[in-house]
Amino acid sequence: KIRTSILHLISFSQEQKNAHDMMKIIHSIKVGIALLIVSLLFLLDPLFEKVGENAMWAIMTVVVIFEYYAGATLSKGLNRGMGTILGGGLGCLAAIIAQEVGGLGKELLVGSSVFVFGTAATYIRMVPRIKMRYDYGAMIFIITFNLIAVSGLRADEVMELARQRLSTIGMGFTVCIFTSILIFPLWASDELHYSIASKFETTASSLEGCLEEYFKVDNEKEIQLGASLNACKSVLHSKSKDETLANFARWEPWHGRFGLSHPWEKYLQIGEVLRELATTIFSMQGCIQSVVQSSSNTRQLIKEPCEAVGSILSWTLRDLGESILKMKRCRPKVLISSKLQSVRLELDLATSPGNLGVLGHGDELA
Amino acid sequence: KIRTSILHLISFSQEQKNAHDMMKIIHSIKVGIALLIVSLLFLLDPLFEKVGENAMWAIMTVVVIFEYYAGATLSKGLNRGMGTILGGGLGCLAAIIAQEVGGLGKELLVGSSVFVFGTAATYIRMVPRIKMRYDYGAMIFIITFNLIAVSGLRADEVMELARQRLSTIGMGFTVCIFTSILIFPLWASDELHYSIASKFETTASSLEGCLEEYFKVDNEKEIQLGASLNACKSVLHSKSKDETLANFARWEPWHGRFGLSHPWEKYLQIGEVLRELATTIFSMQGCIQSVVQSSSNTRQLIKEPCEAVGSILSWTLRDLGESILKMKRCRPKVLISSKLQSVRLELDLATSPGNLGVLGHGDELA
Repeated sequence: KIRTSILHLISFSQEQKNAHDMMKIIHSIKVGIALLIVSLLFLLDPLFEKVGENAMWAIMTVVVIFEYYAGATLSKGLNRGMGTILGGGLGCLAAIIAQEVGGLGKELLVGSSVFVFGTAATYIRMVPRIKMRYDYGAMIFIITFNLIAVSGLRADEVMELARQRLSTIGMGFTVCIFTSILIFPLWASDELHYSIASKFETTASSLEGCLEEYFKVDNEKEIQLGASLNACKSVLHSKSKDETLANFARWEPWHGRFGLSHPWEKYLQIGEVLRELATTIFSMQGCIQSVVQSSSNTRQLIKEPCEAVGSILSWTLRDLGESILKMKRCRPKVLISSKLQSVRLELDLATSPGNLGVLGHGDELA
Repeated sequence: KIRTSILHLISFSQEQKNAHDMMKIIHSIKVGIALLIVSLLFLLDPLFEKVGENAMWAIMTVVVIFEYYAGATLSKGLNRGMGTILGGGLGCLAAIIAQEVGGLGKELLVGSSVFVFGTAATYIRMVPRIKMRYDYGAMIFIITFNLIAVSGLRADEVMELARQRLSTIGMGFTVCIFTSILIFPLWASDELHYSIASKFETTASSLEGCLEEYFKVDNEKEIQLGASLNACKSVLHSKSKDETLANFARWEPWHGRFGLSHPWEKYLQIGEVLRELATTIFSMQGCIQSVVQSSSNTRQLIKEPCEAVGSILSWTLRDLGESILKMKRCRPKVLISSKLQSVRLELDLATSPGNLGVLGHGDELA
């Protein structure tokens, strides 16, 4: 049984790896297509006559904005748009005021506004909440404000320049969004959904592997633990990846079965709980690898109730994972927890009071 | 004692927070200064006459490159330089070949090279090793290649344009590096060094807090666990932050007591081991909060040897952390481990075989 559960784990992760490789190729081709489309602004004469040299801003926008997930592309694009508009507006204001002042005050005013806005925006960028969502927008704000305020002293047609750039950035953005969302969209929402559901599967398999390993005869040990240990670690260290995905998922439009206000916060909470469970499994695996072990008699004594608890736990985990994956309401809570309670009681009876209490509690965390 | 260890933990993290706030302000001001310097290219007439409109590339470079840590700035700057040179070179080549071909083949050749290089570079960007270190360089490569190859069809003086842009990007880079490294440099190396050393302190305090909590009288419980639980979690989830810092630290030049080939890899390994220890402490805290507990008689029985083990462990951890912090050779391994062994033996004697075995193993992981 342990062999099957670990083989299952390996084939599962192999499958995921292949799917990811495929998606990477799709993403690369999509970027190539978007670049080709936007390069047509240069390559085709009638188009070039309309936009001129400013077409370079469209190319830059495509390269900079186009990210792996549709949500990331949208987030960067909107950030870029907002940053450009805000920075451009304020920059124009600064340039106009400076023109009114005239003389040496002009340079002084522009210089100090560059310093003040640059410093303030950089500080705001580092506030965690802003950094998570609007970091890129703040950077574009600084660039645009600076460029417009400073070149406003030189060029008379700043407004016209700003308008042209904005429109080519808009073209680049449109091309990105269409290729990103219309051709094989790679949704961060899907990825988060599957990854949370598969974490249930992973923890269930590790738990099984861990228990089976514990009750093995001594000389068979330390052969199979590697795979489930790694699986457990991957769950443990998934926090930052989950948070990034949830952040992108919030930007994604209605698609598939994900509505506009899908509860992404809940996914993060579930991930947190699963990580706590993985912590427990991980340290149980540490115990198994330790040199000091309870006698095999003791182990035989508690084998049956322990395995019963283990199998119910992993069954429950898989059940929960599947209900999340398929977005179905899962079995009522009472039904699951009453089963768990009764098996736990058995385990408590089988072990003398105090004895092996810690292992019991570890299981209970689930 | 628990109160002091937790107060210690809180004041320690408060201090760190203040220091970080101060550093953020310093960083913001440094960005402001760099922006001001680079804006002088526009503001001062003699400078503007030399560089002209291309000065905008210097401003963009400063905003885009200037990062919090000196290593990050260097890494981004060098990446930008390499990407520009490589992309510019290949782009010129493509443009020249296309000019040779002439006719409709010209557009076809440029279009297909844009598609092929864009797709290939995007795919390479996603290879984990490349992504970690050269992601930004690959992006700049795509932008530059595209711009040069495509505008090579239009402008005759592509080479001159490329040279001017490269030189203004160089100016921006120089300004960044000087303000970043000469004015209050914020080294990623220092941050990694301190954060690894302070993780020892944090785990030692959590371990102490955890043990003290376990041996408290029942009705005093669950008051103080929050702080050490959070501290433990912060260690647990430090993996990605450590990796980022080590990545930046590798780019940083010789400074302070850090040589050119400082063993950053070792820091990551130590961090990994500390995270494993934190996992164990974390699940022990879970056990303490559980409803089922061993009788207070049993606890009193093992209190003394357990506390001995705990205090030796935390003393050892603090000692190791301090020796890392001060870069001193720590006490010889035999001395520490023989002490640990003897106290463990005591603990084993105090607990009946099999009884409380799991907790014992947990401690041993250290």
